[in-house]
Amino acid sequence: MLQSKLFTKTERTFPKDEEAANARFLERAGFIYKNSAGVYSYLPLGWRVIQKLVAIIREEMDAIGGQEMFMPALHDKRYLSATGRWDVDVVFKVLDGKNPKPAFSLSWTHEELITELASKYVHSYKDLPFSAYQIQTKFRNEPRAKSGLLRGREFMMKDLYSFHRDEEDLDRFYDIVKEAYFNVFKRAGIQAVYTLAAGGDFTSSNTHEFQAICPVGEDTIYVCSKCAYAENKEISKLSGGGRCPKCEGKIKEEKAIEVGNIFPLGAKYSDAFDLRYTDEKGEKNPVVMGSYGIGVSRLMATVVEMYHDEKGIVWPESVAPFKVHLLELAGASASPAEAGRKSAKKIYEDLQKIGVEVLYDDRKASAGEKLTDADLIGLPFRLVVSPKTGDKIEVKKRNEEITKIMSFEEVIKLLGN
Amino acid sequence: MLQSKLFTKTERTFPKDEEAANARFLERAGFIYKNSAGVYSYLPLGWRVIQKLVAIIREEMDAIGGQEMFMPALHDKRYLSATGRWDVDVVFKVLDGKNPKPAFSLSWTHEELITELASKYVHSYKDLPFSAYQIQTKFRNEPRAKSGLLRGREFMMKDLYSFHRDEEDLDRFYDIVKEAYFNVFKRAGIQAVYTLAAGGDFTSSNTHEFQAICPVGEDTIYVCSKCAYAENKEISKLSGGGRCPKCEGKIKEEKAIEVGNIFPLGAKYSDAFDLRYTDEKGEKNPVVMGSYGIGVSRLMATVVEMYHDEKGIVWPESVAPFKVHLLELAGASASPAEAGRKSAKKIYEDLQKIGVEVLYDDRKASAGEKLTDADLIGLPFRLVVSPKTGDKIEVKKRNEEITKIMSFEEVIKLLGN
Repeated sequence: MLQSKLFTKTERTFPKDEEAANARFLERAGFIYKNSAGVYSYLPLGWRVIQKLVAIIREEMDAIGGQEMFMPALHDKRYLSATGRWDVDVVFKVLDGKNPKPAFSLSWTHEELITELASKYVHSYKDLPFSAYQIQTKFRNEPRAKSGLLRGREFMMKDLYSFHRDEEDLDRFYDIVKEAYFNVFKRAGIQAVYTLAAGGDFTSSNTHEFQAICPVGEDTIYVCSKCAYAENKEISKLSGGGRCPKCEGKIKEEKAIEVGNIFPLGAKYSDAFDLRYTDEKGEKNPVVMGSYGIGVSRLMATVVEMYHDEKGIVWPESVAPFKVHLLELAGASASPAEAGRKSAKKIYEDLQKIGVEVLYDDRKASAGEKLTDADLIGLPFRLVVSPKTGDKIEVKKRNEEITKIMSFEEVIKLLGN
Repeated sequence: MLQSKLFTKTERTFPKDEEAANARFLERAGFIYKNSAGVYSYLPLGWRVIQKLVAIIREEMDAIGGQEMFMPALHDKRYLSATGRWDVDVVFKVLDGKNPKPAFSLSWTHEELITELASKYVHSYKDLPFSAYQIQTKFRNEPRAKSGLLRGREFMMKDLYSFHRDEEDLDRFYDIVKEAYFNVFKRAGIQAVYTLAAGGDFTSSNTHEFQAICPVGEDTIYVCSKCAYAENKEISKLSGGGRCPKCEGKIKEEKAIEVGNIFPLGAKYSDAFDLRYTDEKGEKNPVVMGSYGIGVSRLMATVVEMYHDEKGIVWPESVAPFKVHLLELAGASASPAEAGRKSAKKIYEDLQKIGVEVLYDDRKASAGEKLTDADLIGLPFRLVVSPKTGDKIEVKKRNEEITKIMSFEEVIKLLGN
């Protein structure tokens, strides 16, 4: 894409009303726009990151047989009323214009809707198991939304729901989702810790969270130094300096961001919506369910929290809005032909031909401005063309300090396209 | 996809609480689920159709330089208040849990948000023109939502906004969007009539609608039999039996479904949000805007209204959830090897290998049930394998009556893959 055409611009300073690094960098670099506290627009660069994350998540959900669908945001009052969640604090209520009392809640989560829906299609044990997911907007009335995309009042989530004949089959699938989740986070550049946690408003069982260890995280977890065991402070029976119950390893307290969670729901929602199946003996049993979430916008924020320096964002290649930032520095456009070198425009076109995603800074701006912007936006590879580089290209990876001078062919090789 | 794995099922009868053909067929065939009046879930088959439409729309919007983004559904009261639209009847209001009066409206349209947002980035004439779009959920508090996906209380829309220095540049882009819209509708199988209309709550100018002529349409338009001129009854100065003002052709009254609209907004929103640019002389001028909508879910409904028969939906290939419905009829799985023919499973795998999207009905069900379901679901090509077909495949196009017996190689040729 031509940067001169991009309607957003970077800002010289950080926004004054944001505390969290993710919001400070994403707003300043033109990835997001704050509409109100906890409510953001995804601008073209930010939306590209979201699309990258969504593509990764879709691949992993499809790979485990998840069927994609899309449920509404307007939830008739009957849904949350059936499970006693209508009056949960964080639920936004919607007026229908006629009644003084709210008629709908806004999609906070979708267990109720998908359970009712499943009861239309599930009758026999032969209809089980299956799983379905969506990538959709969720709403949560946070009293103090101050962590940027980490805790929004409106945010994007992938939620998967699974349906089983018994706990054993749920356990089997639970482990499959666990692996798929590790794949998602790994591909997004996040090392997640599988953490035992409480069920909150969702279930009375223990659940599991995927926690990214990060100083700005709102969660506190206890992680064993020896084995893979971790648990959330909320349910922890361990003291900060204690020992792991599994292996006697030393326990470390860490701040962490919850990027995903998986909940064994049991029959809580099946009972509320009469979701039952007939088994081989003709007996009716409640369907056993699981629910599995990944905060897509929160994941984007977590990547920024983990990958930035004082100059800007340092996107992992897998989720960067573009792979390459091509900069034409002042004077370069004057005479590429005379200098016998490829013009930046030609490099831009040739890279696109072989499928490389390039943001080409073709603006009339100073070298300093372009270089500062490139660091702030944080694409993985920076290519500079200027009179100084002759018929070569100056290449710098955003996450390394060294710059190299390369031929176009060497650049192609480096990019691996 | 294996039909035995699809969690939805077709129903034997039409839903009792739906009047519109689109909802009757889509619900019965398992494409959508009604959560409340005008509020639907898109089930796996229905979601695939939406994704096909979204892909077409994206391609056409990207081709004219539209920059994709995503704005929120929660709109702070300040937005609609600034343009006097807070009290428009169809706007849903949201309570924030603290104040007795609503603090937000739900996204009915996004002119206000994008205008404020643009004012952060547009300063000079050099920042113009540009256009940005999103594909996002809209809400509209319809008092009587009874037309299925044609008029929902929650629906999916593509909305594009454009920003210009003057009316002349807006006019230039307006024509470009017009052509892109014709492309979208044509690719989706819809012949749209470009119709002069009023601006409603959006603008005081005349606007244009893209109308699909269809008996169940809620709009009445007057179409010239001779030239391309058409106008909506709401603004018409023509009588039903009159003559076209452009060419004296005879005027015909038609019922039609509005599948898209384009609005020249002028400076209405720019004035409200102080969106101005400095021209070459250093003078400040309001930015001139346009807005352009396509109802994605309504388009899906329109396709169903236009393409169905008494047996079910007849999807155009471009938007069908799968291209091929492969049916294995009773007995077929017993001995494909003995009969020296390709098993249905092998045909399924081989078609997928060459990129054909196939729904494979591998269920243990009667021939009658499978054939009835295939007609109801309405995929473009039906392939039947049974002991009767020997080492050949019985092929029928959903929109033709004749069946043909073909070899696998001939089928591949027919499918054009």
